[in-house]
Amino acid sequence: ADSGNSAQVSAQPTGNGSTYETLAVSMEDDITTIKLNRPLKKNAITNQMYNEIIAALEQTAKDDSVITVFTGAGDFYSSGNDLTNFTQIPEDGLEQMAKRGGELLRRYVNAYIDFPKPLVAVVNGPAMGISVTLLGLFDLVYATERATFHTPFSQLGQTAEGCSSYTFPKIMGTAKATEMLLFNKKLTAVQACELGLVTEVFPDSSFQSEVWTRLKAYAKLPRNSLSFSKQLIRSTEKQRLHEVNDAEVECLVERWMSDECFNAVMSFFQIKAKL
Amino acid sequence: ADSGNSAQVSAQPTGNGSTYETLAVSMEDDITTIKLNRPLKKNAITNQMYNEIIAALEQTAKDDSVITVFTGAGDFYSSGNDLTNFTQIPEDGLEQMAKRGGELLRRYVNAYIDFPKPLVAVVNGPAMGISVTLLGLFDLVYATERATFHTPFSQLGQTAEGCSSYTFPKIMGTAKATEMLLFNKKLTAVQACELGLVTEVFPDSSFQSEVWTRLKAYAKLPRNSLSFSKQLIRSTEKQRLHEVNDAEVECLVERWMSDECFNAVMSFFQIKAKL
Amino acid sequence: ADSGNSAQVSAQPTGNGSTYETLAVSMEDDITTIKLNRPLKKNAITNQMYNEIIAALEQTAKDDSVITVFTGAGDFYSSGNDLTNFTQIPEDGLEQMAKRGGELLRRYVNAYIDFPKPLVAVVNGPAMGISVTLLGLFDLVYATERATFHTPFSQLGQTAEGCSSYTFPKIMGTAKATEMLLFNKKLTAVQACELGLVTEVFPDSSFQSEVWTRLKAYAKLPRNSLSFSKQLIRSTEKQRLHEVNDAEVECLVERWMSDECFNAVMSFFQIKAKL
Repeated sequence: ADSGNSAQVSAQPTGNGSTYETLAVSMEDDITTIKLNRPLKKNAITNQMYNEIIAALEQTAKDDSVITVFTGAGDFYSSGNDLTNFTQIPEDGLEQMAKRGGELLRRYVNAYIDFPKPLVAVVNGPAMGISVTLLGLFDLVYATERATFHTPFSQLGQTAEGCSSYTFPKIMGTAKATEMLLFNKKLTAVQACELGLVTEVFPDSSFQSEVWTRLKAYAKLPRNSLSFSKQLIRSTEKQRLHEVNDAEVECLVERWMSDECFNAVMSFFQIKAKL
Repeated sequence: ADSGNSAQVSAQPTGNGSTYETLAVSMEDDITTIKLNRPLKKNAITNQMYNEIIAALEQTAKDDSVITVFTGAGDFYSSGNDLTNFTQIPEDGLEQMAKRGGELLRRYVNAYIDFPKPLVAVVNGPAMGISVTLLGLFDLVYATERATFHTPFSQLGQTAEGCSSYTFPKIMGTAKATEMLLFNKKLTAVQACELGLVTEVFPDSSFQSEVWTRLKAYAKLPRNSLSFSKQLIRSTEKQRLHEVNDAEVECLVERWMSDECFNAVMSFFQIKAKL
Repeated sequence: ADSGNSAQVSAQPTGNGSTYETLAVSMEDDITTIKLNRPLKKNAITNQMYNEIIAALEQTAKDDSVITVFTGAGDFYSSGNDLTNFTQIPEDGLEQMAKRGGELLRRYVNAYIDFPKPLVAVVNGPAMGISVTLLGLFDLVYATERATFHTPFSQLGQTAEGCSSYTFPKIMGTAKATEMLLFNKKLTAVQACELGLVTEVFPDSSFQSEVWTRLKAYAKLPRNSLSFSKQLIRSTEKQRLHEVNDAEVECLVERWMSDECFNAVMSFFQIKAKL
C-alpha cells in the first residue's frame, strides 16, 4: 500500500536539527511530508507523538515547502488516540491528568487551525477518532479505496473533538454528521467522498503514484497564491474554530473524569485482552 | 406503514400526569416517542397541537429517556400547519391573531432549538411545511421510501420558517434550498437523502422494524456522551438559530396580515372545496 | 445553444432611458434578463462591463420584475475577468490601477450580495473565474450539460473572489472547494450539480425551452413572498459576505502588485500569442 516516495521518508534531522522518534519528516519537490511512524501500533497517537506533531507542524509552517502532506506508515493511516494514554494515572491524580490531556489536545488541534499553507491528508488506510475528525481542518483529503472513517466516541463514553462538532455538520449536514459523531457509524472511502469529507478516492494499487504525481504538479503553482487563498478560506471561520476547540476540550476533560468514560474504556481493554 | 411498537403508543398519562389529546406519547427501551395522532387529518398541526408538542418536548427533556423520537400516526408524517388555524378570525381582529400565531410559532421552534437530547425524526410518510423545515433541527432523520418533502410557502403567500432559511442553505447549499423554500419543489425521500436533509431511506415494508432495531441499540450507548455531543454540535449555532427564528416569525406575521397571503389561502380553500 | 427568447433581447433603452453597450437587458413575463453581450470575446468582462452590470442590477432591483435572470450571449456564459484589464497600465502607475481595480471589484460583488430579488443564473455554456465564483451568491443556477466551471486563480498568481472563499466551502465542503479555488480543477455541469453549486442540469438541445418554461411559471408566484424569502436567506449571512468580500479584495489588490501575479499573467499572454 505504501510505495513511491517512501525511500527518502525516514526519521531524520530536519532544518533546525531536531529529530522525531515517532514521525518520519522529509522534504522533496517543495512538499514536506509528515508521516506517522508507528506502523506496528496502527499509528495510534501517544502523548509524545502529539507533541512531536505539534513541533513538526510549527517547523513546517516556516520552511520553504509549498504544500504539506500528512500520512501514515504501513497499512493504517492512524487508529487515533492511543488509549494507553489513559492507563498511566500519575501521582497527582486523575483530575490533573485529565487537565493536562485537555491542554495537550487543545494545542494539538490549534496547530491545525493555525497552519498557514495547504495541508493535504494522504489517507493510506483506515482512520479512527481524532485522525478522522481533524480531516475537517485539512484543505485536501485523498483516500485509498481501502480507507475507512470511524469516530466511536460515545462507545468510549467520550465526545467529539478536532472541531468536528462544527466542521462535520458544515460539510455533510447534521443528519449525516450525527450518525458518525454520536452513533459510531463507520464510513467507507466512497461514502466519505460523497459526503464531502474526502476530496477523491483512488484504487489502492495506484493510490500513491496518482496522488504524488498530482501533488508534485500542485506544488509548482505560485506559492503565495496558494497560501493566501488557503488563509482567506480559513480566516472566514478561524475565530469560530478556536472557540469550538475550547468548548470541545472542556467537555472532554469533564468526560475523562466521569464514571461513564472510565467504565467504557475499562470495558474496551477487557474485551481487547480476551481477543 | 405503521407497525412494530404501535401497540403501546396511545394517548396516556405521562410522568407528571398530563394527558395529550392530539399526541400519543410513550416511553420504552429508554426512548420517548412523540407521535402526532390526528391520522384522519394527515396529522395537520392545530394551535392546540403546537401547545401540546411544546409541553411534550419540555417534559421529555427532563425524563429518563436517552433518545427522543418524533413520528406520525397513519400514512402521513404531517401535512404541516393546519390552515384552519387561519379561518377563525377572532373578535380582536386579524392583527392580534397574527401576533398570537407568531408568538406560538416562535415558542414552538424554540422548543426544538433548545431540546437537549438526540432528537430523531421517523418520517413514516409525506411531510409538508413546518414538519419539513424543522427537520433541519433534528439530529437524525430516517425516512420511508414513501416519504416526500414539500414546503409550498410561496404558493400560500407565506415565507420560510423553522429556521430553514438558515439550516437548508447550510445543509444543501442555496442553489438547492431556494428551489424548495421559494419555488415549491417537492423532494422524494431519496432526493432529500442525497441533499443531506435525510440521514437514510428504508424500504417501506421494513421501515419500522429496521429503524426501531437501530434506535434501541443507540439508546444503550452512554447517555451523557450522547446528550453532551448533541449539545456541542448545537452550541456552535444556538444563538444564531434563535436570531433566525425571530426574523422568520417577524416576516411571517407581516405576511399573515398581507393581501397576498389572504388571497392565496382563500384560493386554496376554494380549490379544495371544488374537489 | 441560444434560442427561445433571444429575439427581444438586444441593447435597448430601459426604464430610465439608459442604454448598455456590453449588455442586452430586457423585461418580459415579469422577468428581467441581463445578458452579457460580447459573444466574440466569450463574454469576458471588461471594466466598462463591470460598471454596466452594476448599473443594470441597481436598476433591476427597482423595476417591476419578479425574477432576474443573468445569462450570456452565444456559446459561452462568460470567460470571467477580461485580462486586458491588466495590460493598460495608466500614468499614475500599477499601484493606483490595482487600487481602482479593487474598488470596482468590491462594488461589483456588493451588487450581488445586496440584490433583493430572486437572482437566477442561466449558464448557457462554459464559465470561468468570477463568473463561476459569483454563482455562490445566486439563488438558482440552471446549467446546460455543455457548461463547465473553472476558477484558475493560482495559475494566474491570483486569489479567490466573489465571496467564494466563504460560499464554496459552505456549499461543497473545504476538501472539494480547495481543489477548485486553489488547484484549478475544472468541473463538468454534472459535477457542479452534485456538489450543490448548480441547481439542475439540462440537455443542451432543450436547455432554453425547459428553463424558460419553468422561470415563467415561477414568476407568477406571489412576488413579495419570493423577495422576502430570498432576503431572509441572505440576511443570515449578509454582514459576513460583505466582510469576506472586503478581505478577498484586499488580498487581490496585493496580488495584482506582486511579481508572482505579473509573471503569471505575462506568461498567459505569451502562451496565447503563440497559439
